[in-house]
Amino acid sequence: MNRDAAVDWSDRKDSALLTDLYELTMFYGFWKYHKHEQRACFEYFFRLLPPHNGFALFAGLEQVLSFLKNFTFNPSDLDYLEQQGFERGFLDYLQKMKLDIDLWSVPEGTLVFPHEPVLRMEGPLGVLQLLETFILNALNYPTLVATKSARVCYAAQGDPVMEFGLRRAQGPDGGLSGARAAVIGGCVGTSNTLAGKLYNIRTLGTHAHSWVMSFDSEFEAFKAYATAFPNNNTLLVDTYDPLQSGIPNAVKVFTELRKEGIPCKGSIRLDSGDLAKLSKEAYRQFQEAGFEDPTIVASNELDEDLIAELKRQGAKINSWGVGTHLITSSNCASLGGVYKLVAIQGARGWEPKIKISANSAKITDPGRKKIIRYYNAEDRPLADVLYLEDEAIQNDRIITHDRDNLSKEIVFKADHYCELAEKMVDNGKVSMPRISVEEIRRKAQTNLAEFPDEYRRLRYPQTYDVLLSPETARVKQALLEAANFYRTETAAVKEPWSDRK
Amino acid sequence: MNRDAAVDWSDRKDSALLTDLYELTMFYGFWKYHKHEQRACFEYFFRLLPPHNGFALFAGLEQVLSFLKNFTFNPSDLDYLEQQGFERGFLDYLQKMKLDIDLWSVPEGTLVFPHEPVLRMEGPLGVLQLLETFILNALNYPTLVATKSARVCYAAQGDPVMEFGLRRAQGPDGGLSGARAAVIGGCVGTSNTLAGKLYNIRTLGTHAHSWVMSFDSEFEAFKAYATAFPNNNTLLVDTYDPLQSGIPNAVKVFTELRKEGIPCKGSIRLDSGDLAKLSKEAYRQFQEAGFEDPTIVASNELDEDLIAELKRQGAKINSWGVGTHLITSSNCASLGGVYKLVAIQGARGWEPKIKISANSAKITDPGRKKIIRYYNAEDRPLADVLYLEDEAIQNDRIITHDRDNLSKEIVFKADHYCELAEKMVDNGKVSMPRISVEEIRRKAQTNLAEFPDEYRRLRYPQTYDVLLSPETARVKQALLEAANFYRTETAAVKEPWSDRK
Repeated sequence: MNRDAAVDWSDRKDSALLTDLYELTMFYGFWKYHKHEQRACFEYFFRLLPPHNGFALFAGLEQVLSFLKNFTFNPSDLDYLEQQGFERGFLDYLQKMKLDIDLWSVPEGTLVFPHEPVLRMEGPLGVLQLLETFILNALNYPTLVATKSARVCYAAQGDPVMEFGLRRAQGPDGGLSGARAAVIGGCVGTSNTLAGKLYNIRTLGTHAHSWVMSFDSEFEAFKAYATAFPNNNTLLVDTYDPLQSGIPNAVKVFTELRKEGIPCKGSIRLDSGDLAKLSKEAYRQFQEAGFEDPTIVASNELDEDLIAELKRQGAKINSWGVGTHLITSSNCASLGGVYKLVAIQGARGWEPKIKISANSAKITDPGRKKIIRYYNAEDRPLADVLYLEDEAIQNDRIITHDRDNLSKEIVFKADHYCELAEKMVDNGKVSMPRISVEEIRRKAQTNLAEFPDEYRRLRYPQTYDVLLSPETARVKQALLEAANFYRTETAAVKEPWSDRK
Repeated sequence: MNRDAAVDWSDRKDSALLTDLYELTMFYGFWKYHKHEQRACFEYFFRLLPPHNGFALFAGLEQVLSFLKNFTFNPSDLDYLEQQGFERGFLDYLQKMKLDIDLWSVPEGTLVFPHEPVLRMEGPLGVLQLLETFILNALNYPTLVATKSARVCYAAQGDPVMEFGLRRAQGPDGGLSGARAAVIGGCVGTSNTLAGKLYNIRTLGTHAHSWVMSFDSEFEAFKAYATAFPNNNTLLVDTYDPLQSGIPNAVKVFTELRKEGIPCKGSIRLDSGDLAKLSKEAYRQFQEAGFEDPTIVASNELDEDLIAELKRQGAKINSWGVGTHLITSSNCASLGGVYKLVAIQGARGWEPKIKISANSAKITDPGRKKIIRYYNAEDRPLADVLYLEDEAIQNDRIITHDRDNLSKEIVFKADHYCELAEKMVDNGKVSMPRISVEEIRRKAQTNLAEFPDEYRRLRYPQTYDVLLSPETARVKQALLEAANFYRTETAAVKEPWSDRK
């Protein structure tokens, strides 16, 4: 597919303003102090996985690349900013500015873990600051949905899963980028027609209750539908009563079609009620009528847990339509990805920077970093190690440090390794060709299969280690010491707060 | 603001395909059977409020109206559909088709309740079916966020609340329409610059940790920021340690500014840690330094419950930045609004239609309906009653029926009433002028104030009654009887399922 054929948000010409006001304010401040062109390095990472998850599946990079390619402030944007109090000299700078940046990222469809610099950008401080909000918006949501989709498909044990969520998505673009991410995570297609066109992914669907209600009887409605669409004749059987009328009417229609010489296998959708019980009864009735292998689709508030439970109960469902809970990742509606300054180029070259917090999870890993994934001889991943950009990569016997407790050394043997991120933007030019969603989906399947079930199960998965290289640990330790992190001395920590006036 | 100036999703020329494939399939089926121009009536409603909520605040209508105004299939859409197997005759029909529809809706900013026909459309069956998905997508999410925003603002007890969620929103449009809905619900503004431009709403923001990290010291960073932006000099005090350095540095900077003759009141933002404790300490230090009324902004994973709890603990916070949990409505990521066929025009005029289910909440109320809100003499809402379109509205002593248990009569006295919905599209023409977001926000404040706290509190609010008029109840009863709803006779209900083979 041609990169220019797609027209989702990231391809639009008016999206440079899609950023938090404070990014513009800070850029303006940097400009006032002549700091805006100082070279800086920011990294995108997240601190927590969605609940019960052993991994995240990275998605959304294509939107970032399209956005960078089309990035521009149009005259009405600049007029708007002038009304908001930005001075014309700064706006002239914005208008002429080139995105003189380099970008490294892991490819979409890669399994990633907390605190890994999944995407790294180097460029002028002002520009990189400005880009923060869009990058977070573009990566957090697709990664969340691709991850959820991988879980749902894992629960479905190889049955096809269809993404049906557009009507409950958080806005049109939620529906679009969500559908794309759902397919990356493993869904076989989407109900979203525009997503089908934009991303060249398969579109799927059956019919609604209104089809049935618009005819005088359910039987008549079924017969009309199955006749009109012989290649896609799944009948929705719960408009009135699935047991008393829906399932028997469907079986009757397919039987009549067969008698008329039209080949059909029998296919229904259940959208309410006890899906285990109804699917078993439908299967029984189809068997009795001579339909060996009927398609029984289930929908209605499905998620990975409900699918796993229905599987355990032997439900005769072999195709799943998953909407709301997939497209919104309802049990965890956002991935808390952040984009942090990790280094800035000063007089003495790159200076690593750290963000400190009393909450150790919020302390950043300073320096420009890359992710090395180590494997054993059977190609199973062992651990990921965050190295500084110019540090030598260890082989064989790997010495690392715990991220939080730096004095804790973790040593392991590895057979081989690979670097996860690739350079995708070079001096503002996107050097990465657009990859089809289908190809990303295939890669994701391969990547998922690399990780044993222990990391993928739906509850209490094993924690995959993300460790610091010797140099990363040394720099972090030095910056923490310099900031007096290891010694707290205030009245506040010694007294219970509510006793103070 | 000019309607044509906005360029969000609903104004785009390529959004007719933003629908589920099955809507197109059904339209195609109706076309094949020459049923597509049969006049039908669909209603939008939801069955459940978000958890702990006594009401929903309606939003998203503007997107629906813009969408209808711009609705068109462009040639590449039709080519795409032809590749998907739709025949050219049908596609020619789509291309030439006019949206010959009428639409009634309650205005944005109105409090609405489960099972109310908030929006009603009449028009050709095929077209109305096609529009289902967009309407659900356009209304469900903004209504969800406007409702959440009203709760958050309720908890903040009049303090300004700012919408800060773009980076965690589900896609760019989630960020845009979410920001608009958040302001309708009560927020004073948003961090989202494009939303500010498109919807003419206030944009707000402070600075990030990276501002501080890009300077050699926190003090230097603060001084630079407060000097550069004297009118918007809120300092983020938790890059390193709020108690040991952030708060004291901020107080020192504002004190220096005052000495330099620059008027300032003292303003900080807390983004981590114990917000109650830190805000009290900051307030104390500001007071001691002679700052009587400092602005203390809090952010970091806030929602209505946390704000209410901080208020109870006497936190000295007087301004709130709410991101993730507002823009995603994280405790309930979707409103389950549906769009159901309620009547179809046959040989004998409008025939009411019903969807039946063993789950009584899923049984629809048949017929073309309107919502009447009854008030007492003090202008307090008493109950809403769903009347059939051509039924006489009762005055004074009002006789109604329970929605589920139709034989239960509920009678009450009312002083006056109003009809909630207005006709907004007449024969395909949008007759409703665009209303500014600020005006919708003001109306919403008035509407919210009409309802006593009992309906608005954050836990176990009173249930506001939605009742059926005598005629609506009679028609529903008749259709349920005709469908044998009151008598179930299958083996399945008598035997435990797992014993059957």
